[in-house]
Amino acid sequence: QYLSSQPSAMAGTSEPNRNTKYDPRKPHITDTPMTRKNWYKHINWLNVFLIIGIPILGLITAVWTPLRLPTAIWAVVYYFATGLGITAGYHRLWAHKSYSATLPLQIFLAAVGGGAVEGSIRWWSRDHRAHHRYTDTQKDPYSVRKGLMYSHIGWMVMKQNPKRIGRTDISDLNDDPVVQFQHKNYLKVVLFMGLIFPSLVAGIGWNDWFGGFIYAGILRIFFVQQATFCVNSLAHWLGDQPFDDRNSPRDHIITALVTLGEGYHNFHHEFPSDYRNAIEWHQYDPTKWAIYLWSKMGLAYDLKQFRANEIEKGRVQQQQKKLDQKRAKLDWGVPLDQLPVIEWDDYVDQVNNGRGLIAVAGVVHDVTDFVNEHPGGKAMIRSGLGKDATAMFNGGVYMHSNAAHNLLSTMRVGVIRGGCEVEIWKRAQRENKDVQYVKD
Amino acid sequence: QYLSSQPSAMAGTSEPNRNTKYDPRKPHITDTPMTRKNWYKHINWLNVFLIIGIPILGLITAVWTPLRLPTAIWAVVYYFATGLGITAGYHRLWAHKSYSATLPLQIFLAAVGGGAVEGSIRWWSRDHRAHHRYTDTQKDPYSVRKGLMYSHIGWMVMKQNPKRIGRTDISDLNDDPVVQFQHKNYLKVVLFMGLIFPSLVAGIGWNDWFGGFIYAGILRIFFVQQATFCVNSLAHWLGDQPFDDRNSPRDHIITALVTLGEGYHNFHHEFPSDYRNAIEWHQYDPTKWAIYLWSKMGLAYDLKQFRANEIEKGRVQQQQKKLDQKRAKLDWGVPLDQLPVIEWDDYVDQVNNGRGLIAVAGVVHDVTDFVNEHPGGKAMIRSGLGKDATAMFNGGVYMHSNAAHNLLSTMRVGVIRGGCEVEIWKRAQRENKDVQYVKD
Ligand code: HEM
Ligand code: HEM
Ligand SMILES: [Fe+2]
Ligand SMILES: [Fe+2]
Ligand SMILES: [Fe+2]
Ligand SMILES: [Fe+2]
Repeated sequence: QYLSSQPSAMAGTSEPNRNTKYDPRKPHITDTPMTRKNWYKHINWLNVFLIIGIPILGLITAVWTPLRLPTAIWAVVYYFATGLGITAGYHRLWAHKSYSATLPLQIFLAAVGGGAVEGSIRWWSRDHRAHHRYTDTQKDPYSVRKGLMYSHIGWMVMKQNPKRIGRTDISDLNDDPVVQFQHKNYLKVVLFMGLIFPSLVAGIGWNDWFGGFIYAGILRIFFVQQATFCVNSLAHWLGDQPFDDRNSPRDHIITALVTLGEGYHNFHHEFPSDYRNAIEWHQYDPTKWAIYLWSKMGLAYDLKQFRANEIEKGRVQQQQKKLDQKRAKLDWGVPLDQLPVIEWDDYVDQVNNGRGLIAVAGVVHDVTDFVNEHPGGKAMIRSGLGKDATAMFNGGVYMHSNAAHNLLSTMRVGVIRGGCEVEIWKRAQRENKDVQYVKD
Repeated sequence: QYLSSQPSAMAGTSEPNRNTKYDPRKPHITDTPMTRKNWYKHINWLNVFLIIGIPILGLITAVWTPLRLPTAIWAVVYYFATGLGITAGYHRLWAHKSYSATLPLQIFLAAVGGGAVEGSIRWWSRDHRAHHRYTDTQKDPYSVRKGLMYSHIGWMVMKQNPKRIGRTDISDLNDDPVVQFQHKNYLKVVLFMGLIFPSLVAGIGWNDWFGGFIYAGILRIFFVQQATFCVNSLAHWLGDQPFDDRNSPRDHIITALVTLGEGYHNFHHEFPSDYRNAIEWHQYDPTKWAIYLWSKMGLAYDLKQFRANEIEKGRVQQQQKKLDQKRAKLDWGVPLDQLPVIEWDDYVDQVNNGRGLIAVAGVVHDVTDFVNEHPGGKAMIRSGLGKDATAMFNGGVYMHSNAAHNLLSTMRVGVIRGGCEVEIWKRAQRENKDVQYVKD
C-alpha cells in the first residue's frame, strides 16, 4: 500500500489504493500465516526501500556531504512547512474538515503536504477517517492494539489486505479539485516538492545543490515522516486520557512537541472536528497557531470549535468514571438494606448485657473495640451507648468529621425498626398508648 | 495569656490559663472596641516583649557576637531537638495521643519541648484541642478566619478573652505526672532548657558561653517559635485540600519543610489521631520518621494509624464534591421530565413540514442547525430525520462518541409518548388493532 500503490491506484478504479495486481477472488498473502519460507512475501519491499532504505542511503551520503549553515536553516524551515502540510492540511483541513481554506492556502498545503511524502491527500484522509471511525479495531489501518511498532511503521512495511481497512465516506474529497489534482499527479508532486524544490532553493540560493538534496530533501523527508508517524504510535501509547479511556488515544506534551501539536490526541479523538488539538493557551500546538494566523490573514475561515461546555462535560464524565472505579475498590460498610432489623428494646437490652452498641441515625453500630480508641475519649462515647446518639454525634456534643462518619459506617450491625427512637415515641404519643413499633 | 499567664495559671485554680487578675464579672478589655485612646490596653505587652522584643535584642547583640562553627552546628541541632519537642511531643503525643511514649522519652520531650518556649504542655494542648474541636469558629484560639497574621502571632500579641476559647477535655493530661511536673515548674524548665542548657553545652564544650546563649538560646528560640507558629497560620492558608474543604486546613510542602513535617495539615485535621501527617513515603515528615525510629528503639509504642481504606474514602468524597461542583456549572440539556411529550405522528408530521427533528432513545432532538455541521456528513444525519434513529446513532451505522451523546442531549425538544417507535408498534401488534398510544 502506501507509496507503492499510489501510482496504480488512480487508474480509473473508484476504490482508492487498490493495486491493479490485486484480485479480490484470490486469497491475499495476509490470509496465509507467516513462515520461514514465505516471510519475505509478507513484506512490502517497495515501502521498506522508500521509508527505510533511502534514508539510510541519505545518511551514508551525508557523511561526506558538508552541511552548510544556510542549508541547515533551510532544511529546518522546510521541515516545518512540510510538517504543517500534513498536520494543518492533510489532517485538520481535508481529513477532518475542521476549518475551510481559500484556494491559495489549499494549493500551498497540497504542495508542501506532498513534499512530506506520505501519500496523496485522498489516500491519507481515507485511511485516517477509517482510523477515527474504527479506532483500535481490526478495521483501523494502524491500530496500536497490534503493537507500538506496527502502528508506527509496521502497517506500511508489512503487506496489508485492502479488504481489512474500514470503509469511509470520501465523496467530499472526490469532489475537491485540489485533492483530485494532487492525487492524479502525485508522483510528480512528490518528486518536485519532496526533492527538486528543496534542492533548487539551496542551489539557486547559495549554490549548495547537493546539500539541499541530501539535507532539505532526503533527510528532511525522513524526519518529517518519523515525526508524523508518531501521531499513530506515540499518541496512542504515551500519556493521559482526560476525556475517554475506552480507546487508546492519549495526551502528552512529548508527542505534541514531536508532531507540531498533534499530541493532545485523546482530545482530538473525542472532538475530531475541532480545529484545535490543544485547548489551553499554554499547550504546544503550532498547527493551531498557524491556522489561527491564516484565519486572521483571511486565508482560512469557518474554524470549528466545540463549546467549552461540551468539552468540560467530557472531562467531568471521565473523572467521574475514574472516581467510581476508586470508590468501588473501597469498603463502605455493609449496605443499609443488608443489615438485620433490630427492635429498639433489643438494642437497649444488648447494651445492658455488655455489648458496646450505639445507635446513630437509626443505625446500630458495634463500637465495643473502638471505645478505647475513640479520639474524643472513652467517657464521651460510652455516654451514647444504648441511646439514640444521633444528636450527640452530629453536633450536639461534637460535630464529627467526615472521617468519623466514614469510620462509623464500617461498624454498622443493624437498623432500628421504625427509625430513630424519637420517631417511636412520637408515634406512641399520637396513638396515645404504650410504645408500639411499626411493623412493615 | 501564653507565657505571661503560665506562672499564675497553676495557682490552684482548676481552669488552666486563667490570669489571677481576671474577674469574670467585670467586662473584659476585648469586649470594648479598640480606639485611639485604649489601643495599648488591647495589647499583651509581656508577650510582645517575649516573642518580639527579646529576639530583636538578640539580633542586635548578635552583630558583635562572633558566630563560631561549633556553635552554629549546635544551634541547628538544638533547633531540631526543641522543634521535635513541640511536634512529636506537645502535638502528636500529648495533644493528640497518636502514640504512647515510655517515661524516658516523655521526659526528653517535655524537656526539649519546654526549651522551645511555647507554653507548658498542658496549656498548649488545651488550646490545641480547642483549635481542632472548633476549627475556624469563634472558639478556635487561633482561627485563621481572623486573618493570617492573627493566626500566626496576633492571638498572642493581642489580649484574649479567656471565655472565648472553646472548652475541651484535658483530664488525661491532668492525670499525667510528666505533664503536671512540667506545668508546675514551667518557668524553671523554660529558663534551663531554653537558655541555660544551650549556653552550658557551648560553654563547657568549646568555651563559647555567650555565643551559645545568643545563637543556640535566644535566636534559636525565635526560629523554633516562628516555625511552629506557621502550623497555625501557613498550614491554614497555603495549599490543597484533598480530604475536606469545608474548613481551612491545607496541605503544602513548604509548610511541611518549615514545620518538621506538620505541613500536611488537611490530612491532620481529618485524621488527628494518626501519628503521621504525611502518608506518602516521599513526603517530608521528619516528626513521623523520628516517632517511627523511637518505636523501633522501644521508646515509643501503639503508633496509631487510620486504615488506608478510611483515608481513601475521605479523598474520594472530596474529589466527588469538587466534581459535583464542576458538573453543576455545566449545561446538560433540558432534563427529560421538563420536556413536552410529543405523539409519534406529530413528530413525523413536523419533520415532513421541514423541521429537522430526530428521535433517539425516545427523545426528540432538533438538529436543524446541526445538520450542516455534522462530522459524519449531512446525508447520514438526514437519513435519520423523522425516524427512530436510536440504532443508527448507537452503533448501527456509527458508534458515536461520548462527546456526540453529550452534544445530542443539548438538542432535546421533547419525548415521544410511550417511548420509542418500536414500543408503540409492538403494543399495537399485541392489541391487534391500529396504533394507540399509552395515556398515563
Ligand atoms: C459512635 C461512634 C463514634 C465514632 C466512630 C467517633 C469517632 C470519632 C473520631 C474519629 C474523632 C476524631 C475527630 C474527628 O475525626 O472528628 C472523634 C472525636 C470526638 N468525639 Fe467521637 N465518635 C463516636 C461517638 C461519639 C459520641 C457518642 C460522642 C459524644 C457523646 C463523641 C464525642 C467526641 C468528641 C467530643 C470528639 C472530639 C475530640 C477532640 O478533638 O477534642 N464521639 N470521634
Ligand atoms: C442525531 C444527532 C447526531 C449527532 C449530534 C451526531 C454527532 C456526531 C459527532 C459529534 C460526530 C463526530 C465523531 C464523534 O464524536 O463520534 C459524528 C460522526 C458521525 N456520525 Fe453522527 N451525529 C448524529 C446523527 C447521526 C446519524 C443519524 C448518523 C447515521 C445515520 C450518524 C453518522 C455518523 C457517522 C458515520 C460519523 C462518523 C464520521 C467519521 O468519523 O468518519 N450521525 N456524529
Ligand atoms: Fe489517532
Ligand atoms: Fe485525526
Ligand atoms: Fe490546625
Ligand atoms: Fe493537631
